Amino acid sequence: MSEDNQQDDFRQQALHYHAYPTPGKIAVALTKPADSAEDLALAYSPGVAEPVREIAQNIDNVYKYTAKGNTVAVISNGTAILGLGNLGPMASKPVMEGKALLFKRFAGLDSIDIEVKHRTIEEFVNTVSAIADTFGGINLEDIKAPDCFEIERQLIERCDVPVFHDDQHGTAIVTAAGMLNAIELQGKTLADSTIVCLGAGAAATACMELLIKCGAQREKIYMLDRKGVIHTRREDLNEYKKMFANNTDKRTLEDVIEGADLFLGVSGPDLLPAEALKLMADKPVVFACSNPDPEIKPEIAHQVRDDLIMGTGRSDYPNQVNNVICFPFIFRGALDVRASEINTEMKLAAVEAIRQLAKEPVPEEVLKAAGVSKLEFSNEYIIPKPMDPRLLPRVAKAVAIAAVESGVARIELPKNYMS
Amino acid sequence: MSEDNQQDDFRQQALHYHAYPTPGKIAVALTKPADSAEDLALAYSPGVAEPVREIAQNIDNVYKYTAKGNTVAVISNGTAILGLGNLGPMASKPVMEGKALLFKRFAGLDSIDIEVKHRTIEEFVNTVSAIADTFGGINLEDIKAPDCFEIERQLIERCDVPVFHDDQHGTAIVTAAGMLNAIELQGKTLADSTIVCLGAGAAATACMELLIKCGAQREKIYMLDRKGVIHTRREDLNEYKKMFANNTDKRTLEDVIEGADLFLGVSGPDLLPAEALKLMADKPVVFACSNPDPEIKPEIAHQVRDDLIMGTGRSDYPNQVNNVICFPFIFRGALDVRASEINTEMKLAAVEAIRQLAKEPVPEEVLKAAGVSKLEFSNEYIIPKPMDPRLLPRVAKAVAIAAVESGVARIELPKNYMS
Repeated sequence: MSEDNQQDDFRQQALHYHAYPTPGKIAVALTKPADSAEDLALAYSPGVAEPVREIAQNIDNVYKYTAKGNTVAVISNGTAILGLGNLGPMASKPVMEGKALLFKRFAGLDSIDIEVKHRTIEEFVNTVSAIADTFGGINLEDIKAPDCFEIERQLIERCDVPVFHDDQHGTAIVTAAGMLNAIELQGKTLADSTIVCLGAGAAATACMELLIKCGAQREKIYMLDRKGVIHTRREDLNEYKKMFANNTDKRTLEDVIEGADLFLGVSGPDLLPAEALKLMADKPVVFACSNPDPEIKPEIAHQVRDDLIMGTGRSDYPNQVNNVICFPFIFRGALDVRASEINTEMKLAAVEAIRQLAKEPVPEEVLKAAGVSKLEFSNEYIIPKPMDPRLLPRVAKAVAIAAVESGVARIELPKNYMS
Repeated sequence: MSEDNQQDDFRQQALHYHAYPTPGKIAVALTKPADSAEDLALAYSPGVAEPVREIAQNIDNVYKYTAKGNTVAVISNGTAILGLGNLGPMASKPVMEGKALLFKRFAGLDSIDIEVKHRTIEEFVNTVSAIADTFGGINLEDIKAPDCFEIERQLIERCDVPVFHDDQHGTAIVTAAGMLNAIELQGKTLADSTIVCLGAGAAATACMELLIKCGAQREKIYMLDRKGVIHTRREDLNEYKKMFANNTDKRTLEDVIEGADLFLGVSGPDLLPAEALKLMADKPVVFACSNPDPEIKPEIAHQVRDDLIMGTGRSDYPNQVNNVICFPFIFRGALDVRASEINTEMKLAAVEAIRQLAKEPVPEEVLKAAGVSKLEFSNEYIIPKPMDPRLLPRVAKAVAIAAVESGVARIELPKNYMS
């Protein structure tokens, strides 16, 4: 089959998967018997009046008698759908249902999608905060930068439940875990590393913020947008880009990549030329995360340099940076202790748990799922695989403990976390 | 067991049902395979980009590739929960989940609850209309009068999907079906009947409006609120009560019930004295729908008069007026033809379908579920039983056909409706 035919075949498969036998990917299921008239007398009138009264007396009882505590809303306005752009709320629905599917599949969380139509940031925030109490947590998704920063900030302030913009923080957590492992394997430290970040959107900003919290130095970071290096003399910067404005005379990717230790690409296909890669310091780390086509193809990168560690967003290369190894579990941990927010301590705990897992022997079932005979902490394996069943207990537990220790948990650690 | 003990036992059962083994009554289920990496490549990145593109090109494709078309949101603000009053959005959650359970159980609709926190009608309407496109339809629930009228009016205007306040219209449809059958059995017509409506809230208003559409005469209706008869010289009436202001000198229940043919109670327990019942015309129809305690107990009513037909809101008496024989099916029919609204024609079609079903021989399985050996159209059986499996095909089909014929359907009648 030609590449075109293969692509068309996959396209048809994907459409068929979504359309048949029923449209979409998620449904509602009943968790209680509802067959007999007696069942229904408990589920609805008159029995339902009892939990209503209990919740009216003590609002925390909503966690005891309703599904709230296990529910995550995946909310978008469709302004930055995957890499496809601003296609509107309805076009984002398959992605949001997909995210809901992943929450259920990986962490047993009941997740539903909500698509919001709005004109202003204020309208979006008003809408989401008005319905927020319905859920145990809110995962924001595919909202364009810089709106997403202000939206998340306001929602965290106004909502009683955790609000987490996965495109920012999920990406940042997995990236940081992988980069910390890569840099350790290269015999370097984050504090001493010069970092080039190609891209200045939601993911780029969050990744750099989190790397700084992990030890990177702000003045050693060079962020680039479409116009080149973000520096202190530019006057076209929004407040978010300004935080990364470097006091430098360097202006181009070529200027900053020379001698750099770390490259993070969250931009577009083939934007890191092989010639630029050659300029990096010894033993560089390159995460080319543009999807589906990375900033530089791994086969080309490895041709140019044999001393690099590389990650991409793709599952068909080693070291996939995939949010799914974080977001289901960070929410699982947060919801299991009724955290009021997902704070920095919890994010760093997730980074550490993911890092550590990559260093441990890999069980047979994971090898099988990954279709390989061996996975050992090395240049080709710095990030756990999405199908690794150890992610759920490890990451959720680390996050829950961090929530308790940082004082944002509203209940104690559940018993199943104690072992 | 004493009555107190029985009540306490039922209370404990209801709380246990809601709390164990998991809190609440609904969950999310996956409708597509999500086991392997291949599955996930179709469900999420990169495969999900395909339905996104299709929907971006033609928004109607959202019905083809997502669960929207089978989804109903049950939305409340908790301002009038059951008969318990304004207990807030969180206390309404068990009721809304219960309604979602009934939608699934009776009509296979995937239904989720949304509880809205708001200060003004405008905020509620803005919130719901911003998220409305997420769903195939919106069922409003337990919103206090008169706010509910304005809220529903504005939402119908602003939403592309059907919006239906079940406390109003579900109640009205089932009441109208039962009353039409009762009055027929009594050898009367609605047009000639004098009607007393005790209660002037959402359900009362909607019931009277629909009875008028079924042939009742507005000037023969006497509606009473807490202050007595609603008449044209009262100056304390909101615009909704004004529509039923009767140009009459009668002021009390006793004044208006004399010679009345129909009584509808949507008020509170024991508010229809036996002495008042005695004053009604020959062969009266009495629907005492206050729950759990009716306006007059059936055993007392039958002692006072042997010529009446009686309905209540309770399952342990004959002729239960129960919304569940309407709302799952009216939404099923509306969604199956993608109706843009649930209009009067569709409501009347539901009334007629429910009426007719009560006149037909009852299959064995319904008798079994109802725990009786015989059900025959009579004073004691004027409304189909909630467990009647014929309701789904009959009511949904009647509603869908009415939608098509009245021009609000966006697609043709599905094939399974043709038989």
